[in-house]
Parts: sequence; C-alpha cells; structure tokens
Amino acid sequence: MKEILSTKNAMIKELKKLHKKKYREEKQQYIIEGFHLIEEAEKANAQIDWVLFNQRGRTEWSDWLDEQPQERLIQVSYEVLESLSELPTPQGMIAIIRMPELENTIQFSGGWLLLDNVQDPGNVGTMIRTADAAGLSGVILGEGCSDIYNTKVLRAMQGSNYHLPVIFKPLDNIIDMFKKLKIPIYGTELNPEAIIYQKIPRTKNYALIMGNEGQGISPRFLEETDQNIYIPIKGAAESLNVAIAAGILMYHFESDN
Amino acid sequence: MKEILSTKNAMIKELKKLHKKKYREEKQQYIIEGFHLIEEAEKANAQIDWVLFNQRGRTEWSDWLDEQPQERLIQVSYEVLESLSELPTPQGMIAIIRMPELENTIQFSGGWLLLDNVQDPGNVGTMIRTADAAGLSGVILGEGCSDIYNTKVLRAMQGSNYHLPVIFKPLDNIIDMFKKLKIPIYGTELNPEAIIYQKIPRTKNYALIMGNEGQGISPRFLEETDQNIYIPIKGAAESLNVAIAAGILMYHFESDN
Repeated sequence: MKEILSTKNAMIKELKKLHKKKYREEKQQYIIEGFHLIEEAEKANAQIDWVLFNQRGRTEWSDWLDEQPQERLIQVSYEVLESLSELPTPQGMIAIIRMPELENTIQFSGGWLLLDNVQDPGNVGTMIRTADAAGLSGVILGEGCSDIYNTKVLRAMQGSNYHLPVIFKPLDNIIDMFKKLKIPIYGTELNPEAIIYQKIPRTKNYALIMGNEGQGISPRFLEETDQNIYIPIKGAAESLNVAIAAGILMYHFESDN
Repeated sequence: MKEILSTKNAMIKELKKLHKKKYREEKQQYIIEGFHLIEEAEKANAQIDWVLFNQRGRTEWSDWLDEQPQERLIQVSYEVLESLSELPTPQGMIAIIRMPELENTIQFSGGWLLLDNVQDPGNVGTMIRTADAAGLSGVILGEGCSDIYNTKVLRAMQGSNYHLPVIFKPLDNIIDMFKKLKIPIYGTELNPEAIIYQKIPRTKNYALIMGNEGQGISPRFLEETDQNIYIPIKGAAESLNVAIAAGILMYHFESDN
C-alpha cells in the first residue's frame, strides 16, 4: 500500500487535474468523494483505479478497506485529501474511477429522457437521479449539456449514473433512431398545438425531450417530435424549473394507473 | 436623484450588510438583482426603498426609470454595483426591498406546503416556485429552513414570493391550527403504514409536509399527520430530491382529473 503525505507529490498533482473536464476526457478518469458514492461505484462494477483515504477514512471504513486489493489503496495526509476535495468538509475518502466504455449494445426500449442543452449541473444530476427513481431505461445528454463527471453533478446524481445508462450523443442521431424504431417522441413546449400531459396515453416505450433552462428545446428538435406536451401553470409563476417539470412528466409516464 | 461613485460610501457599506441574514432582520430590508425580479416586486406592490443602477441599467431600462419616483433612484458606478452584486455578471440594476409585514389576515384554505427543516436554499426556492405554479395557497417555513431573502433562494423563486404568502412560523402551531380547521395533513414517509400518493383523494383544502434532505420529517410532526404517503421508487435510486418529490405531490393534489 502506497503512502503520500505531501500535496506537492507528482501523482497528487496529476489527480488534481481531474477537476477539469479536459483532463477527465484525456485520462478517462474522474474523482468521486465519500464512502456512499464509492460503494455505489463498487456495486455497479465500475473500475476503481485508486482509493485515497486519510486517518479518519482508515478508522471509519477499516473493514471495507481491508477487503480491497491493496495495490489500489493510498493512505494520504489530511492536507492531501483536502487538496483533492471539492467539498467544504472532506469525508475522509476519495476514489479515482475509470470512465465506462461507450456501450453499443444498449436496447432502446422503455422510457428514455433526452436532454437538449441543459446547462445547470444540479438540474442535469437531479434529472438523472429522478429518471432512475421513476424507472426509465436511460438518459441521453445532447449537445450543450453539463458534463456529468463534475463534483456537483456527481453529488446530485447520488450514484444513479451507475444504475442506468447515461449516454453523450447528438440528439439528431438519437431522434432519427427512435423514429426508425417507431417509438413516440414527446417534446415540452407551451404552444397552441401542445396538449396537457395527463392526456398523453402511457406506452411502454417513449422518449421525452427536456430543453435548456432559458430557451427550452431547440426548434429543430421540436419539429421532429410526435407530440408536444405542457404542464399547466395555475398560479402566477411564469414557468417550472426544468428538473421539476421532468420529474412530474416522468412519474406520469411511468405510473401504473 | 442621488449619485454614488465610491464603494467606500457609507450608505453602500450599510447596504452591503444586507447580504447577511442578521442585518436583513435588523433592517427589515433585502436586496434583489436584475430587472426581472424588480419588475415582479413592483407588480406585487412590494415597497421598493431604493433602486441602484449603473450606466448599462440607465441605458437598458430608461423608460422604466423615468417613471419611478426620483427620490428613490441612485445612479452608481460599475464598481459600486459590482460590490453589491452576488452574481458572476451583475445585471446593471439592484433594488432594496422592504420586507412585508407579517400578515394576520391570511385565509387557510386551499393547498398549503409546510417545510420542516429544509436547508438547501435551492430546494426551498424551487419548492416555493413550484407551489406557485401548481396553484397552492401558500407556503409555511418551519424551524431550520433556509432564509428566503438570500440571493440563491430569491433567484430560484423567480418572484413567486410575491405571488403567494410565504410565512415563517413553527410548524407545531401551524399543525394545531390545521387540525382545528379539520384540514387533512399529509406527511411524506416510506413506512408500512404510508400509502402510495395516487391513492390519496384530492380535496380542496390540504396541508402537505416535506422534510429535511437527509433526515426527512421530524417524528413529532409525522405522528400528527392524518396520513403518510410515499412516491414509489422503481429503479435503484434510494430516494428522490425533496423538491422533485414536492413537485410530483403538489401536481397530484392540484390536478383536475
């Protein structure tokens, strides 16, 4: 088992770079913090490259650490762990995870959430967590969406990225594919042709597109949908937060009765 | 019309203190940023004590500024506006708003959202915005909830605090009052006695309690509810974000069909 005490250590300096998207893509690795997320990654058979822990981590999760392959463990000082953490109070353990290979074997059945240019990391993370909870098959992040391997998204997802496939792909290609599979595609838009969501019949397979926080869904995608739907606003609010709207719609589509 | 160019001006120093909850309560004032929120405050007849704008604000909203009582306008330098702003890019206009008097004349009919110890400002703000959109009558913030006059909550609310009453009051008193009015009170909890939310009959009057992000609703409040309800989790997620859960439940209760 390695031990690193200095924040100036060359490996620590390299790992710190993983807080930047560019380096995550180059190294195909990302950082997760705290035992809960590490446990989720392990349950999902994600490849754990390194586990870094300080004295507190050693004490709190000694049983779990003893069962780990020793060659991936690194005991570090409080300062080293703090220098890698983005949390106000670091939790004593951090892991470096290898990004999954892009899968070509995914079955496009069931419910799919398609995000078009959703920029807020909290919104993206919360929608992936809700898609998981509601029972959808997967989530597709189109162009302009927040990267999912930044700390804020990872925390908002609460491990749901290990429970269902989350795929980065331009929505043009994806929409074409759903059309060929004859799976209905729904957009969300407030316009005269849109219908209230409760009138949409529930089907086993469907795709639901949610759009940018300010501009909504790109017009070229709205034109490709089978039906545009809306959620009624009864009070004086101008709109709903996109993650709230997605939650209401996904629970409608996945409801049994 | 006043003009202030220096960030060291005594009044600017005083206004800056309003970013702290303690001073907001002392002064009974809070800061809002950007024309959209200021317009919402004006529409709601909130008392606007001061409007501070820089050259950009003067240019963009000159018609609106010309119609304002001149004694409340303050032209400031870019630096002064920036020193009062909490946004990455200040929007050229800031207003100082007087907090509303606590109202004793509120009618407790319709739907009410009761928050118990909800700590995340984004969650609190989003729930108030959703309550407004769904058509609830008001929101009550019990002990431990985030203050609503901080910048993050004000932005997440998008002006909804001007559309429906948002009241700070210990939930013990509120729950007693709903009980006396024979209005059903629902808690959210995953336990053997809880029932799935879709089975709850829709009534004109109701109170829905949502709890802390980690611990849920305090046991002493759960005991006082008429029925505890849950949202089914079909995937592998452990739970839903509290604001998402509140959105699904409020749209269920306020749905017409």
